[in-house]
Amino acid sequence: MSVNVKYINPFIEASQSVLQDMCKQDLKIGKVYLKVSPYASSEVVIVIGITGDIKGQVIFSISKDVACSIASKMMGGMEVKELDELSKSAVQELSNMILGTTATIFYNRGISIDITPPSLLIGQEIRISSNDMKTISIPLEFVGTGESFEIDVAMRE
Amino acid sequence: MSVNVKYINPFIEASQSVLQDMCKQDLKIGKVYLKVSPYASSEVVIVIGITGDIKGQVIFSISKDVACSIASKMMGGMEVKELDELSKSAVQELSNMILGTTATIFYNRGISIDITPPSLLIGQEIRISSNDMKTISIPLEFVGTGESFEIDVAMRE
Repeated sequence: MSVNVKYINPFIEASQSVLQDMCKQDLKIGKVYLKVSPYASSEVVIVIGITGDIKGQVIFSISKDVACSIASKMMGGMEVKELDELSKSAVQELSNMILGTTATIFYNRGISIDITPPSLLIGQEIRISSNDMKTISIPLEFVGTGESFEIDVAMRE
Repeated sequence: MSVNVKYINPFIEASQSVLQDMCKQDLKIGKVYLKVSPYASSEVVIVIGITGDIKGQVIFSISKDVACSIASKMMGGMEVKELDELSKSAVQELSNMILGTTATIFYNRGISIDITPPSLLIGQEIRISSNDMKTISIPLEFVGTGESFEIDVAMRE
C-alpha cells in the first residue's frame, strides 16, 4: 500500500481514543486496506473535509442500527430506536470530535490540517467515487458486540 | 434570510461563469432559499468542503439524467447514456472548477477560503442533515432545456 502510515495512524489513534471515551466500550481496529472507486457504503454517511498539508475527505460509513447504537452509548445507554435529528446530531458530533483529535495529533507531529463541519447523508444503495484521491479504509468494531463500521480516508498524495 | 449575500454571491457568479464556459449553454439562476435539515436530495451528490474564513460544505444535488447531460455537454456533445467513471469524473471536475473560481472571487474580496477535493455519491432516497450549519440552496437551470439542479451551500455563521 503506497499511502504512508504516518498519514493514517493519527486517524486510527484518534478514533480509538474518542470512541472509547464517548462510548465506554473497547474498540478493535481491523486491517486497513485500499478501496477502489466506486465502492458501496452503508446507509449512514458522514462526510468531513480536510485541507492544509493534507487535502481530502473523511467518510464515516455506518449502518442505521450501529448509528443508533452509537448514539445510545453516547447518551448514557438511553434507548435509540430511530435515527432522529437528536441521534444524528450525536453521531455527527462524535465524527467531529474524532477529526478534531486527529488534527491535534497531526499538529503535534508537524503536519497542519484544517477540518470542515460534518454533513450527514442517509440513503439506499449508496456508491462513492473519490476520483483522483486514494481511499484508505479503517474497519472498526466494538469488541464483543458484533457492531462494526468504517472510516474511509480519501486523500490526495 | 440571515446569511449575508456577500457569502453567497461568489458561488452564484462562479457557477454562472464556469457552467456557461464549460457547457456552452445559458444558465438561469433561481431564487436562493434557506433549506431546513433534513432535506431530500437528487440521486447524484457531490460534496466539496470549505475551510478558512468560512467553514462549511458545498453539496451539488443533481439527477442522473442531468448529470449525464452535463457530462455530455462538457465532452463536446458526445452521447452519455450511463453515468460511468469517465462522466462522473467530468461532473466532479466541473464542481471542482466552480469551487476553485468561487475561492478566487472570495480572495479578491478579502475573504480567504480553502477547498477540499470533491467526493461523489450516488444513491436512492437520499436525505441530508447539516446539523449546526445554515444551508442556502441555489437553484440552477440550463435555459430552454428544462434541465435543473441545485447547489446547496451549508456554512457556519
